[in-house]
Amino acid sequence: MPVLYVAITGGILAIVYGIWATRSVLSADAGNDRMKEIAGYIQVAAGAYLNRQYRAIALVGVTVAVLLFIFLKLWPAIGFALGAVLSGAAGYIGMLISVRANVRTTQGAMESLQKGLSIAFRAGAVTGMLVAGLALLAVAGYYTFLTHVMGFDATSRIVIDSLVALGFGASLISIFARLGGGIFTKGADVGADLVGKVEAGIPEDDPRNPAVIADNVGDNVGDCAGMAADLFETYVVTVGATMVLSALFLKSGAVELMSLPLIIGGVCIVTSIIGTFFVKLGAKQSIMGALYKGFGVTTFLSLIAIYFAMDWALGAEGLQQVFATDDRSFTGMDLYLCGVVGLVVTGLLIFITEYYTSTDYRPVRSIAKASETGHATNVIQGLAVSLEATALPVLVISAGIIIAYSLAGVLGLGFAATAMLALAGMVVALDAYGPVTDNAGGIAEMADLDDSVRERTDALDAVGNTTKAVTKGYAIGSAALAALVLFSAYTADIETYFSGLTVDFSLSNPYVVVGLFLGALLPYLFGAMGMTAVGRAGGAVVEEVRRQFREKPGIMLGTEKPDYARSVDLLTKAAIKEMILPSLLPVLAPIVVYVVINQIAGQALAFSAVGALLLGVIVSGLFVAISMTAGGGAWDNAKKYIEDGNHGGKGSEAHKAAVTGDTVGDPYKDTAGPAVNPMIKITNIVALLLLAFLSH
Amino acid sequence: MPVLYVAITGGILAIVYGIWATRSVLSADAGNDRMKEIAGYIQVAAGAYLNRQYRAIALVGVTVAVLLFIFLKLWPAIGFALGAVLSGAAGYIGMLISVRANVRTTQGAMESLQKGLSIAFRAGAVTGMLVAGLALLAVAGYYTFLTHVMGFDATSRIVIDSLVALGFGASLISIFARLGGGIFTKGADVGADLVGKVEAGIPEDDPRNPAVIADNVGDNVGDCAGMAADLFETYVVTVGATMVLSALFLKSGAVELMSLPLIIGGVCIVTSIIGTFFVKLGAKQSIMGALYKGFGVTTFLSLIAIYFAMDWALGAEGLQQVFATDDRSFTGMDLYLCGVVGLVVTGLLIFITEYYTSTDYRPVRSIAKASETGHATNVIQGLAVSLEATALPVLVISAGIIIAYSLAGVLGLGFAATAMLALAGMVVALDAYGPVTDNAGGIAEMADLDDSVRERTDALDAVGNTTKAVTKGYAIGSAALAALVLFSAYTADIETYFSGLTVDFSLSNPYVVVGLFLGALLPYLFGAMGMTAVGRAGGAVVEEVRRQFREKPGIMLGTEKPDYARSVDLLTKAAIKEMILPSLLPVLAPIVVYVVINQIAGQALAFSAVGALLLGVIVSGLFVAISMTAGGGAWDNAKKYIEDGNHGGKGSEAHKAAVTGDTVGDPYKDTAGPAVNPMIKITNIVALLLLAFLSH
Repeated sequence: MPVLYVAITGGILAIVYGIWATRSVLSADAGNDRMKEIAGYIQVAAGAYLNRQYRAIALVGVTVAVLLFIFLKLWPAIGFALGAVLSGAAGYIGMLISVRANVRTTQGAMESLQKGLSIAFRAGAVTGMLVAGLALLAVAGYYTFLTHVMGFDATSRIVIDSLVALGFGASLISIFARLGGGIFTKGADVGADLVGKVEAGIPEDDPRNPAVIADNVGDNVGDCAGMAADLFETYVVTVGATMVLSALFLKSGAVELMSLPLIIGGVCIVTSIIGTFFVKLGAKQSIMGALYKGFGVTTFLSLIAIYFAMDWALGAEGLQQVFATDDRSFTGMDLYLCGVVGLVVTGLLIFITEYYTSTDYRPVRSIAKASETGHATNVIQGLAVSLEATALPVLVISAGIIIAYSLAGVLGLGFAATAMLALAGMVVALDAYGPVTDNAGGIAEMADLDDSVRERTDALDAVGNTTKAVTKGYAIGSAALAALVLFSAYTADIETYFSGLTVDFSLSNPYVVVGLFLGALLPYLFGAMGMTAVGRAGGAVVEEVRRQFREKPGIMLGTEKPDYARSVDLLTKAAIKEMILPSLLPVLAPIVVYVVINQIAGQALAFSAVGALLLGVIVSGLFVAISMTAGGGAWDNAKKYIEDGNHGGKGSEAHKAAVTGDTVGDPYKDTAGPAVNPMIKITNIVALLLLAFLSH
Repeated sequence: MPVLYVAITGGILAIVYGIWATRSVLSADAGNDRMKEIAGYIQVAAGAYLNRQYRAIALVGVTVAVLLFIFLKLWPAIGFALGAVLSGAAGYIGMLISVRANVRTTQGAMESLQKGLSIAFRAGAVTGMLVAGLALLAVAGYYTFLTHVMGFDATSRIVIDSLVALGFGASLISIFARLGGGIFTKGADVGADLVGKVEAGIPEDDPRNPAVIADNVGDNVGDCAGMAADLFETYVVTVGATMVLSALFLKSGAVELMSLPLIIGGVCIVTSIIGTFFVKLGAKQSIMGALYKGFGVTTFLSLIAIYFAMDWALGAEGLQQVFATDDRSFTGMDLYLCGVVGLVVTGLLIFITEYYTSTDYRPVRSIAKASETGHATNVIQGLAVSLEATALPVLVISAGIIIAYSLAGVLGLGFAATAMLALAGMVVALDAYGPVTDNAGGIAEMADLDDSVRERTDALDAVGNTTKAVTKGYAIGSAALAALVLFSAYTADIETYFSGLTVDFSLSNPYVVVGLFLGALLPYLFGAMGMTAVGRAGGAVVEEVRRQFREKPGIMLGTEKPDYARSVDLLTKAAIKEMILPSLLPVLAPIVVYVVINQIAGQALAFSAVGALLLGVIVSGLFVAISMTAGGGAWDNAKKYIEDGNHGGKGSEAHKAAVTGDTVGDPYKDTAGPAVNPMIKITNIVALLLLAFLSH
């Protein structure tokens, strides 16, 4: 019980930090009237979009909650609702801060680079800490409530189902938020760029572009709220699944082990908060260096803190305590080492993603070079980089799987994933920093501030591009591990609750092969839907902007004001409409496959096929997601590299080709790619809930 | 024995048809001197390229043959050499006809559309029949030689290893030919288009473009020789693997069953030859209709012929004969029905590919529409279509797997794949028709013939684009089934030759998960290498052409002749250099994974990981290959659709965007995508040879 209190205290600390940091951000100067006016547009529109998005999601959510209540009773339904509401809240509050920090970052950048960095990063840290804190509170709080207040046995079915349902709630919100936000932001971005930069020849963020506010709104609802919901979900699912696995696998000590992931989460919130205070520019004025300093401190402290926290939590024997499952035994120390594996994997994934998306290395430069020979060679090289970028992360993840598994079996995987996720507070802070600086630059441009301000915000923003890519690599890597943990829960569940049934998961079973094919198909189909949706939304924006330029010729002369609200409204409708169908794909797929194969070949083979489907989604999803996010990031920075004066610089033919590549990469990296994360996990969670339903 | 004679007779008939059709093509009028001159350039350059390509491959081939001789003794080494030489021969002879038929097709098109169609299709049919005939002769001949002349037992290890090595020889040539030819053709195409159409503003196939000959050469060495080697390989591997599986699985009747795939191949050559005579324009003058008529007749006759041939080959009991493996039994009729499944899958795959790549349906039109808003939206929509295009084929293949497996287990899969491949003669004819008509149009343009000729060749060529895409869909679908058969041979081999070892292929084994990840990685990495190679080769062509335009200003005025040979030479070197490394990837991957995991975790888990690697390659490769080939075909025809006068027609902004998409699609559909086929199979075959080596 004291262990649980520590975890809950960690969660509360995160919220306290969030309140403090919010006040600190809001107390900063919001600039002149013009800046406030522009920021006001963004605030109103972002709020309006999220309100409508959450209203649409609520309809689906309430339906699912009712179904869960009917099929799995009260506590899972409440768990689902809790996960859904808190996942939504993390994204929503993060967005509220983000749209207020943007203008203050612009104003801060007028004073100094450090001031701008501080405000932007602190705003990001609010989102980051809220994600980690609320996620930890959700799992630890609900678990404590069920086991200590309601008195359920910790390893009982009702507790397990409730934790799974909690994850499902978070996942369902997250896929909608990721996809809806992704369609909004990239529809706006693609539309604004095509018609503004390419047709009208006006710069990015020019106030004459009727889609410019929508573009800035998009950064907040996509990169900030979407990413927050995504990592909230991965956090809840990973920690929850590791607890569930402990309950399913261990002969003794399950209750003790179930609380370990929670305390890891708790202490890492503290190390993350400490890390935020190390984000300071050094002598070299390197922004990336400042951010990495904060991240490095957090990781280092976490390595130490997790060791002592686990040792303490395991009581008298400490890390020497031995745990046994059916087929093996391992010590607390083994589990700690799995946590170390998770942290090392995190570090390597971040390093590799930076290699593939930073302007300093071969991949981005090869795309920039290929831009010299035109649009097509830019795109070809970008696609080549996106394919290649999957190799090293997959090797790292594979090595991590083997080491963690050798140390402590499937639970080792769970602890590695938990340690990865425990850093979520810090990692989300790095990511949520991105949209703030992106907006800050936009506001500087629209408010016609001095060029030096824009230069500073551009420097902040360039780093934001890399951190956004880096956190996506992290999110996907952790999602893959989390999904493997869920898959193990699926096989364990079948053994536990359908013990009379021999389910053959061997690759020589044709239903397994077919399951793998069908699972691998999901990310492709999902990606296709996401890309098409952005194409459609972007096309609609282009037509709307063209219409406004045609009907109000004064816009280009600066004598007439564009109607910003129309583009926002149009995108809001498009995003909400387009996000529903793809989001249902991972929910329905396992159910449909189960029902169909059950009809054809019986329950055992249906379970085989669904199990293979889950693994197929993970394997194929990992590749699709990494290739899309890394490729998109590389295209983006290849454009930036040219804009820095290479290969002819801004306005050259190479630059035009690079703008095409950047635009192609937009839906890749910000819509389809990252939305694959929650999709992978939803498929797995729905399969678990299906088992729970069938076993009743 | 009479059964084998029938098969061999089928093979010989194909060669006889080939000789007759070659004479018929060569006897046609080769046009005026200018046409002959241009065709001469293409002939010389194509021959020179293939000679150098095969010389380079020979080095690798001899090395591998020596290794096989050392490790597996004489007969497998000879089998390897036989497969390699005949695979190369099929491609080479096909190319020889193709570069002579092109100019005759141009001349024929001057007379009538029917005349042009006849010559082009007959030239394609030569390649098609040679592929099927030589492949059948290779397997049936070598099998007969080993069992009847040398007197080895049909199910003995030496025969099995020799058949596998035969497939390996064919595969190794095929991956080089596919990749080398693919890099050459698309390097030329991308380079010529970028600098010609986009920069210099001259039309496609303009004789002033120094890369124009290389472009036309590329069609022959890529689409014709490359595809021929590919399908030769799939044919040999499928038929061989089905025979091997019969030997491994059956308790009795194995020898009888081993000859069935051969007789299926034999009779389908006859039905394919009959089908070629039905390729005639009807009242509606529909070229596609004429080709489909030939294909339809072949399929229909094959359905009947396979039935009677199998009934006869199985002797007294006919199709009622019962065969038993360890865990099930099935009749000859069940195997026939599996063949029907294979033919139905073929038909559906062709139908689906046409839907995704023909200008008549939504996918291509959506790309054309998206071109209106620019380069980027064209590419985004094209990528969306390429992702989406995987869905239906995978569903069809999954259904085929389940039905065939339910009928007759793994052998059912083998028979379904065999029936698919038995149509190879006809299908390759449809494909090899493409480069002939593509060249014919080029020659018409360069020889400055009347516009009406170019119109006719354009009509022939547009259909060629679709048939090329369609045959790729077929090649990949059959490759996936063939690879599954090989995977079964791998698991069966382990059971037979390492019977003391318990190998766990369950999805809950972490080494299986890691194997799946690593296998899935191969097509991505391979695709990345292929795309990069084309980008580099294309870039080099662009620079060479720019240099010629700069140094010889008379070229554009028509007073000076461009140096065609330089671009050809440059591409030859690039293609041969770039094809080696990626081709070694699938050869080395299973060996490296085996060695590493064997060190870490022992032989049983190493076999698990390698097995999962094989399946990972199949699953991921199928998606990568389908998405690339269908996407590329759709981009190509979206451009054609615009050139037909839609969305502004030629020269419009939409057309420029569509040219970008077409260029991006080039390495997708003609280099990286199709080369995935042989890659999938090489990985599987190398694993089989590894087992053979380890079991000695």
